[in-house]
Amino acid sequence: MDANVLFILAIAAALLALLAAAGFARAVLVHPEGSALVRSTGHLIQQGAMAFLRREYTILAVFVGVVAVVIALLIDYNLLGNPRVTELASAAERLGRGPWTALAYLLGAFASGVAGLIGMSIAVRGNMRTATAAIEGLDPALRVAFASGSVMGMTVVGVGLLGVTVLWLALGDASLVAGFGFGASTIALFARVGGGIYTKAADVGADLVGKVESGIPEDDPRNPATIADNVGDNVGDVAGMGADLFESYVGGMIAALALAAVGAAAVGLGGAGDVRLLALPLAVSGVGIVASIVGTFFVRTGPEASMSRLLWALRAGIFGAGALALAGALGIVVLLELPLALFWVIVAGMVVGQVIGTATEYFTSYEYRPTRWIAAQAATGPASVVIAGLAVGLGSVVVPLLAVVAGIGIANELAGLYGVALAAVGMLSTLGITLATDAYGPVADNAGGLAEQARMPPEVRHRTDALDALGNTTAATGKGFAIGSAVLTALALMAAYAHVTGVSDLQLTDARILIGLGLGGMLPFLFSALTMHAVGSAAREMIEEVRRQFREIPGLREGVEGVAPDAARAVDISTQGALRQMVAPGAIAVTAPILIGALAGPEALAGMLVGSIVTGFMLATFMANAGGAWDNAKKYIELGHFGGKRTDAHAAAVVGDTIGDPFKDTSGPSINILLKLMAMVALIFGPLFL
Amino acid sequence: MDANVLFILAIAAALLALLAAAGFARAVLVHPEGSALVRSTGHLIQQGAMAFLRREYTILAVFVGVVAVVIALLIDYNLLGNPRVTELASAAERLGRGPWTALAYLLGAFASGVAGLIGMSIAVRGNMRTATAAIEGLDPALRVAFASGSVMGMTVVGVGLLGVTVLWLALGDASLVAGFGFGASTIALFARVGGGIYTKAADVGADLVGKVESGIPEDDPRNPATIADNVGDNVGDVAGMGADLFESYVGGMIAALALAAVGAAAVGLGGAGDVRLLALPLAVSGVGIVASIVGTFFVRTGPEASMSRLLWALRAGIFGAGALALAGALGIVVLLELPLALFWVIVAGMVVGQVIGTATEYFTSYEYRPTRWIAAQAATGPASVVIAGLAVGLGSVVVPLLAVVAGIGIANELAGLYGVALAAVGMLSTLGITLATDAYGPVADNAGGLAEQARMPPEVRHRTDALDALGNTTAATGKGFAIGSAVLTALALMAAYAHVTGVSDLQLTDARILIGLGLGGMLPFLFSALTMHAVGSAAREMIEEVRRQFREIPGLREGVEGVAPDAARAVDISTQGALRQMVAPGAIAVTAPILIGALAGPEALAGMLVGSIVTGFMLATFMANAGGAWDNAKKYIELGHFGGKRTDAHAAAVVGDTIGDPFKDTSGPSINILLKLMAMVALIFGPLFL
Repeated sequence: MDANVLFILAIAAALLALLAAAGFARAVLVHPEGSALVRSTGHLIQQGAMAFLRREYTILAVFVGVVAVVIALLIDYNLLGNPRVTELASAAERLGRGPWTALAYLLGAFASGVAGLIGMSIAVRGNMRTATAAIEGLDPALRVAFASGSVMGMTVVGVGLLGVTVLWLALGDASLVAGFGFGASTIALFARVGGGIYTKAADVGADLVGKVESGIPEDDPRNPATIADNVGDNVGDVAGMGADLFESYVGGMIAALALAAVGAAAVGLGGAGDVRLLALPLAVSGVGIVASIVGTFFVRTGPEASMSRLLWALRAGIFGAGALALAGALGIVVLLELPLALFWVIVAGMVVGQVIGTATEYFTSYEYRPTRWIAAQAATGPASVVIAGLAVGLGSVVVPLLAVVAGIGIANELAGLYGVALAAVGMLSTLGITLATDAYGPVADNAGGLAEQARMPPEVRHRTDALDALGNTTAATGKGFAIGSAVLTALALMAAYAHVTGVSDLQLTDARILIGLGLGGMLPFLFSALTMHAVGSAAREMIEEVRRQFREIPGLREGVEGVAPDAARAVDISTQGALRQMVAPGAIAVTAPILIGALAGPEALAGMLVGSIVTGFMLATFMANAGGAWDNAKKYIELGHFGGKRTDAHAAAVVGDTIGDPFKDTSGPSINILLKLMAMVALIFGPLFL
Repeated sequence: MDANVLFILAIAAALLALLAAAGFARAVLVHPEGSALVRSTGHLIQQGAMAFLRREYTILAVFVGVVAVVIALLIDYNLLGNPRVTELASAAERLGRGPWTALAYLLGAFASGVAGLIGMSIAVRGNMRTATAAIEGLDPALRVAFASGSVMGMTVVGVGLLGVTVLWLALGDASLVAGFGFGASTIALFARVGGGIYTKAADVGADLVGKVESGIPEDDPRNPATIADNVGDNVGDVAGMGADLFESYVGGMIAALALAAVGAAAVGLGGAGDVRLLALPLAVSGVGIVASIVGTFFVRTGPEASMSRLLWALRAGIFGAGALALAGALGIVVLLELPLALFWVIVAGMVVGQVIGTATEYFTSYEYRPTRWIAAQAATGPASVVIAGLAVGLGSVVVPLLAVVAGIGIANELAGLYGVALAAVGMLSTLGITLATDAYGPVADNAGGLAEQARMPPEVRHRTDALDALGNTTAATGKGFAIGSAVLTALALMAAYAHVTGVSDLQLTDARILIGLGLGGMLPFLFSALTMHAVGSAAREMIEEVRRQFREIPGLREGVEGVAPDAARAVDISTQGALRQMVAPGAIAVTAPILIGALAGPEALAGMLVGSIVTGFMLATFMANAGGAWDNAKKYIELGHFGGKRTDAHAAAVVGDTIGDPFKDTSGPSINILLKLMAMVALIFGPLFL
């Protein structure tokens, strides 16, 4: 079979994904928005979310513009006259001199922004429709929420695969296509950090004054921060996560393209740049898209299904898609007459993702011992809950690390470092559906908030709560894929960097490498410190605003008819806080590898990348799992264990949950992007440091 | 000058240190013990501490015995017939076949145990005498407490230098002497972990039920856990810390001895094993001992001195000793006609230690912004305090990391990896006095506890509190030296391992190295999880016992005359809990490098060591500083800020302090030893994995 056909098929699959996204969007929008109260509250959320995205994108446009100019001048036009850049410029010469890397960068940033925008636009419409559909029953609500999530899933994979494949065909050089990945990383980092600060400042602020101080329940319309909290779910958990996984998805493919030349020798195939090795990752992604679309048809259930039945429906979709994608991948490997080892690499990638997801579920679900142990500690107060959660989080890194290490070992043994990148591609091949099951959670969460604020009947809230709880479980799997693929992708990009720059002697006993490892290992800590600090500061402003409103608006706390909080003001405070605070961590992520490469040399930069991957992976997993476990320990107590709600034990668990918020939704997930972004920066600017 | 003379001088200096220790012990013991009530309480503490040490040493004797047999069989008698072990056995052959490594190991374990025992025996006598001396004034109390600390400081450096020098002269092979370091590491690990669990289980248990639940003050004699808490200060902060620093002290010298052969080429000196390079680290340590003894004479002040005057007295001692040690080191380098670069390496080591110490003080003292910011967060509850403390702790790794990286860069540039080991030796050369200023803190702390329990006049407690607060500040410097020297020593040992095993190709892009880095990076997280979990479990047992006593002993809570708690029972619970829980983390630390070396090969083991150093350094610094900052944020509020004691803000700060306890006194410091222990294991068993 001619491998070139596969590029066309990949493009076709990408377009199919976009078509499916449009279909899902239609499926959401045909549902009625609901009552006037639902609509008015829903529109407030919608406006807040869109206002944030508009202002965020404005800032990012300036940042991206500046970086694009720097790339064009230093890389595309080689203004410093760097000999290695000249040497690598063969592809650019073939195309005629032009700012190709910079254009790819702009395109990547734009594509990521558009994918986030589309996903969020539907999410802020799906929330109202999910709440309204929940009046009828669980299944209709699931359908609307899942369709909303699927729009995001299909948009991300469609735009991602289309972008990488078209750029590869147009430019024919992985170094140029890497610009696309760098653009996606830039947006992902700011969207994750900015969105993460926004959502947690609002959440922590709302919880601390509302639940803890004033004793009013979550999502109560009297709390001025409730709307901001709901907006936060959309800008953080939908737009932020979409940008994050868009970046993972394209990053894996780009790393595989960059390493195909090196990988050829490792698997005993023909000369460098065997077109089959180039086509394979894109074709696997294409097959995964088709499998994901088919998988969404499995996600359906009876009119009033139980929780376990719902979970079964979602799992059927994910596993069905996985099985189909594997079958497709096997077909491609056989048709291309490639060694079967490459198929096993793809299998390994998928298995590693599943293992991490299952481990995440074990450590964070209240079905299992660790979270129940944390809940049991609540009897002796908040300090015991926090110590227990930290212990669980620290220990939860072991299995994911072993899985990733085994994956690296297998992939490398079978297909060299190209195999590591291919494993990441395999792991994310069914992202269309895994992202859908992940992104429907915040929609259901928002629907619950709307049900509360629009004072809908209690069974509506129960149904949305059931969907939300289910979302937490499927989100665990999603997090496994996000973290696992980040490590594999970042490692593969590091290898690509070493190859592109030609730094070949990277001895572990070399002081430059050790210094790089130390500096790189430190960055995730610094980055987390900044994002935690940002959430703390932004939450404090929110707390003071909520207190002010309760103090100054008569009748608000008591819930007097017709008295409403100034929600817009709270939204504005979150927006400004998040945008102000996202700049420093983002700027550090982009400039650190350049500074270290320029000052300490390319060897130190390689060490830095590896150091950041090692500590970043542990810290991200620790934070995500500690946060998830605290959240669910609180929920377990709310189910009536250890005394249930309104006890000291519950208050202690709320403290743990609040601490976990920035851990699991701001600092933890941002680290994933940090690792890949720094590797992308190194790959693009690396030749300058020789 | 004949370098061989310096070995004799080193032995003389070591004996001088032991003489000084005896003198300081006498100076403590001539003071009166105090009133009957002081004596009876003091003897309870003394009995509890000795009982713990006896039981701990019994368990360790078995463990050490088993390991010694393994070393003798596999290394000394090479039962597996490993060719590399045979090849390396030149020194052993010269001495006649014998279990030399195993004997050195036993000697190291024994020496460490004895140093800890002596230090603690004096500490549990010094506490009563300090409390009694505090009736007269601040200066007499300082003298007694500082003399107690000095016994520990001088014993550790005396025994350490004597052991290494004599073994070197007797065995003449660094691989054999490494056994001594491994023995010291083994004891240090268990003493730190066991003592750390003990002290924090008692502390957390006493605080949670006493201060938080029952509202009775710290060290109140009604609380059944008070005696156990005081015992904990001795077994954790005195015996544990002494064993820890004993191990750092000998580890640095052994690494320098092992790398002297390699280092020779790096500094452009004659052939391998230049005797001057071997004598230099031992001579620098000897000069440091003399300087430390002289420095102790600077530590004195007027009869009723102010806090700042006291701090000045301690600093005068430390800096005076540092200046003298540097002058001596310069003299040795000049006399030996070695390049002056080696002197600058020693200077660099000292400066790095000071920078880390100063940074630690900045992040953990309430004189500065970070801790005050944490205190300010207490207004919005415990969650805000914890988030702020975590953010401060995470960010606090930056400066220490930069200092260590700069130190490695300078030392390596000037003298290769031998320089890295020499910098560690320089950093710890004045350990005699820095350890004294560190170890006097727990004595003063205990004296305060005694003052409270023996109902001494309030000014006594004020004076011991002043000494204790001062001790917290000087302890910050001590921690800087402990962490900084651990990283340098562990790195140098890793280099020695690579040299001894002869694994020379350690490419960063090699999958085996990457796998090793990942596994090594994970171990400090696993280790911390286990130790945090251990403190949580042991504290829970203590809490239940305290509650039981308050429930079942009538009149105890109310403080009825003649009603006393069953303190012995509480001491027993802490002892059993700590001993049971220390085994798993300790066993993991010893077996992990052997397992990885045997299963994944010597390259993966090298990666593992480096990975553990990178994440271990960050995690240890993060935990130590977050814990210290929470502690002092609480103290800052207790001074009257943000409402002072008995407010919600204070309660929130107590939560932070309680969480910080296992961070800063169990998990954090244990990681330092983990890194060095694993490097020692690799150095000794490394040849088996080829």
